Amino acid sequence: MINVVYLHRLGGRFLAPAITYELIAKDERTGARAGIIHTPHGSFETPIFMPVGTQASVKGVSPDELKDLGAGIILSNTYHLFLRPGMELIREAGGLHKFMHWDRAILTDSGGFQVFSLGDLRKITEEGVTFRSHIDGSKKFLSPEVSMQVQMCLGSDIVMAFDECVPYPADYEYAKRSTERTQRWAERCQRAMTAPQQGLFGIVQGGMYKDLRRWHAARLVEMDLPGYAVGGLSVGEPPELMYEMLSYSTSLLPEHKPRYLMGVGTPDHLVEGVARGIDMFDCVYPTRVARNGMAMTWTGRLVMKNANLEHDHRVIEEGCGCYACRNGYTRAYIRHLVRAGEIFGLRLLSLHNLYFLEEFVRRMRAAIIEGRFESFRSEFLAGYDPHRKQAI
Amino acid sequence: MINVVYLHRLGGRFLAPAITYELIAKDERTGARAGIIHTPHGSFETPIFMPVGTQASVKGVSPDELKDLGAGIILSNTYHLFLRPGMELIREAGGLHKFMHWDRAILTDSGGFQVFSLGDLRKITEEGVTFRSHIDGSKKFLSPEVSMQVQMCLGSDIVMAFDECVPYPADYEYAKRSTERTQRWAERCQRAMTAPQQGLFGIVQGGMYKDLRRWHAARLVEMDLPGYAVGGLSVGEPPELMYEMLSYSTSLLPEHKPRYLMGVGTPDHLVEGVARGIDMFDCVYPTRVARNGMAMTWTGRLVMKNANLEHDHRVIEEGCGCYACRNGYTRAYIRHLVRAGEIFGLRLLSLHNLYFLEEFVRRMRAAIIEGRFESFRSEFLAGYDPHRKQAI
Repeated sequence: MINVVYLHRLGGRFLAPAITYELIAKDERTGARAGIIHTPHGSFETPIFMPVGTQASVKGVSPDELKDLGAGIILSNTYHLFLRPGMELIREAGGLHKFMHWDRAILTDSGGFQVFSLGDLRKITEEGVTFRSHIDGSKKFLSPEVSMQVQMCLGSDIVMAFDECVPYPADYEYAKRSTERTQRWAERCQRAMTAPQQGLFGIVQGGMYKDLRRWHAARLVEMDLPGYAVGGLSVGEPPELMYEMLSYSTSLLPEHKPRYLMGVGTPDHLVEGVARGIDMFDCVYPTRVARNGMAMTWTGRLVMKNANLEHDHRVIEEGCGCYACRNGYTRAYIRHLVRAGEIFGLRLLSLHNLYFLEEFVRRMRAAIIEGRFESFRSEFLAGYDPHRKQAI
Repeated sequence: MINVVYLHRLGGRFLAPAITYELIAKDERTGARAGIIHTPHGSFETPIFMPVGTQASVKGVSPDELKDLGAGIILSNTYHLFLRPGMELIREAGGLHKFMHWDRAILTDSGGFQVFSLGDLRKITEEGVTFRSHIDGSKKFLSPEVSMQVQMCLGSDIVMAFDECVPYPADYEYAKRSTERTQRWAERCQRAMTAPQQGLFGIVQGGMYKDLRRWHAARLVEMDLPGYAVGGLSVGEPPELMYEMLSYSTSLLPEHKPRYLMGVGTPDHLVEGVARGIDMFDCVYPTRVARNGMAMTWTGRLVMKNANLEHDHRVIEEGCGCYACRNGYTRAYIRHLVRAGEIFGLRLLSLHNLYFLEEFVRRMRAAIIEGRFESFRSEFLAGYDPHRKQAI
C-alpha cells in the first residue's frame, strides 16, 4: 500500500498534493481568512459554504443550478451512500462525480457522525463500529479502513477521517478515551487512504477540554494532513463555550492548511466561524428550512405561509441575485405554491437559500480582502435576528 | 357589455380575433392535420401536447424548463385556482401569466369537470353548480358567468366553456337534458366573456349518442367560436366506442378552427386522436407517472425502481433530447434517486416525460407534412406496448 503522505514527503517528485490551500488575505483584528483551495476538480474561493447532497443529490436542486448559484464544492455522505445505493454501484458508475453529474469538488464525510446519530444498536470497539442500517435494519460495520475504502470508491476530492464526535456533556475520562481512539483511527485512515488524487482531512476532537484539544490538534498536525476540521462543536453546548473552543482549536492549526467547521450553516454562525479563522462550512439548513417553507434573508427568516405575505408581490429579498428573485418570482406566488404543496415552491426557496449563503460567504471574503471584515460582521449582526420569523 | 364575437362580426375593424388557426397540411388518408395556432402570447405548432399546471405550476418543472422542452402552451385549472389562491389575488398580480412567470400561451378549463369530479355535495341547477370545496369544505358556486369572470381574471389565452361532462354510462334522456343545458351554458359563456384578447372554445358533449353530438356540434358551430373541444370521452367507455364518437364529432367541426381532445395524454391515444383530426391534447399523465417513478419511452413505460435497472448505466432512452438524457443522467442514478425519495429524480422523470410527448407530437407533425403519417402511426403502434412496464 502506497501512502499518499509518504509520496508528499518525497518532495512531490511523484505527485502534487491533491488539496492545497492558498492564503490570500487575513483580517488583522479577527484572524478571518480569505483563500483559495485547489482540488483535482477545480479551485474554489474561501470562506466557502458547501451545500449538502446527502444521497448524491442536493435536495431539489440540479448540478447546473448549483453551479449557477456559485457552489464550487458540495458535501455528500459516506454513511448514506454506503447503505444505498452502495459503493460498488458508484464505483462501477465511475465514481460519485460521474454518478451524480457534478464535475466540481466533492467532500465526503466519513460516516462516523451518522453511525452515532442514525445507526441503531451501535457497538464501538477499537476496530470500528457495528450498527444496524436505519433503512432496512441489516447489520453493518464501519471502521477507518472501510470508511476510506468507501470514500475511495466515491472518489471525493476531500475525504474526512473516521472519528467519534464526543457528545456534550461528556466527562473528562470519556472525552479522553474517545479522542485518543479517534487519533488512532485517524492514523489508520492515513495508512488506508491510498488514492493520490484524494486529500484526507483530520478532525480535531477533545470535547470541551482544552488540553485534549491541544493534544489532539498537535497529533493531527504532526501527520501533515492537507486540511483540518474542528469537530465536536455545535452539539448542544452554550454558544460562548462553542466559540471559545473554536477559537482555541483554530489557534492550534497551521496557517497554510484549510480549516473546516462541520455542520454549521446559519449566517450568524458563519460570520462568527470566519472571525475565528474558519474557511469551510456545510449544513443541510438552507435546503431543510426551504422544505419547511422558509426563506433566509439578511434580516432573518421569512415564513412563506404567513398571512401577511398573501398580497406581497415583491421578490423574497430586493437586490438578491438568486434564480427566484432575479426572475421576479414573488412572495405571494411562492406562498401560494408552499400552501398548495407544489414542489416548485420548495425548489425556488432552496435555490434562494443556497444562493443567500454563497453570496454571504462571497461578501465576507470581499470584506476580508478589503480590510473591513469587522465592520461587515458588526453591521450584519446588528441587522440580523436569528429568531425572526416574520416578514420584512 | 361588449361581446367579443360581436366585435369579430364587425369584420375585425376593432380587434383581430384572439385565437386563430392556420391549416398547414392534412393527411389525405386519415384526416390528421398539421397547423399553427396564433394567440396573444405567441404561436405554437399543432398537433400540440399541453402540460398541465393545475395550481399555477407544472408539478416540479420551471417555466424555463417548459420552454426548453418546447412547450408553447400549458393548461391551468379554473376550479383549483378559484379555490386557492383565489381569482382576486391573481388579478392583482397582473394575471396568471405574470403570477406564474409563463409568457407563452395558457388554456384554462372552465372548472366544470372538477366541480363534478372533486366538489362534494354538488347541486346542479339551470343557474349553475353549488358545491363544497375539497380543500376546506366551504360552500362555493360556479356558473357560466362566474367561470368566465374567473378566467378573465386569470387572463388565459384560451378559455373553455362551462359544461357538464356527461358521465358514462348515461341514459339517453339524461344525456339529452345535460347536453341541452351545456349548450345554454355555452351561450351564456359567450355573452359573459367580454375580454377581446381571450378566445372562448366550445365543448361538444352528447354522451355516446350520435344524434346528440350532431345536434350539439351544430349549435356550437353556429356560435362561430374560435375553437372546439370534444368532451365526454375517455370516461370509461370501451376504446372502440371512444374512437367512433371522436371520429364522428370531429367530422362535424369546421376545418379552419382548432380541435381539442381533453384529458388525453398517452402516446397511443395521441396518435389515434391526431388520426381523427385532433390538434390539441392535455393530460397530467406525464408528470403523474413521473411522480410514480416511471419513464415514458417509445416502447412503453420504464419502472425506474425495477431491480434490473440497478446496474443500467445507460440513459432512459438512447437519442432522447430531454434534459436528463442529453446530460447523461443514467437509469441507475435515477433509480437510486427514486428509491431514496430524492425529488430531483421525479424532476428528471417529469422533464423526460414531458419532452417525450412534445417530441412525439413534433414527429407526428413532421410525418403529416411529409405525407407519411399512416406509416408513422403503424410503426409506432407496432413498437409500443401501452401495458409494458419493463426495461428495454
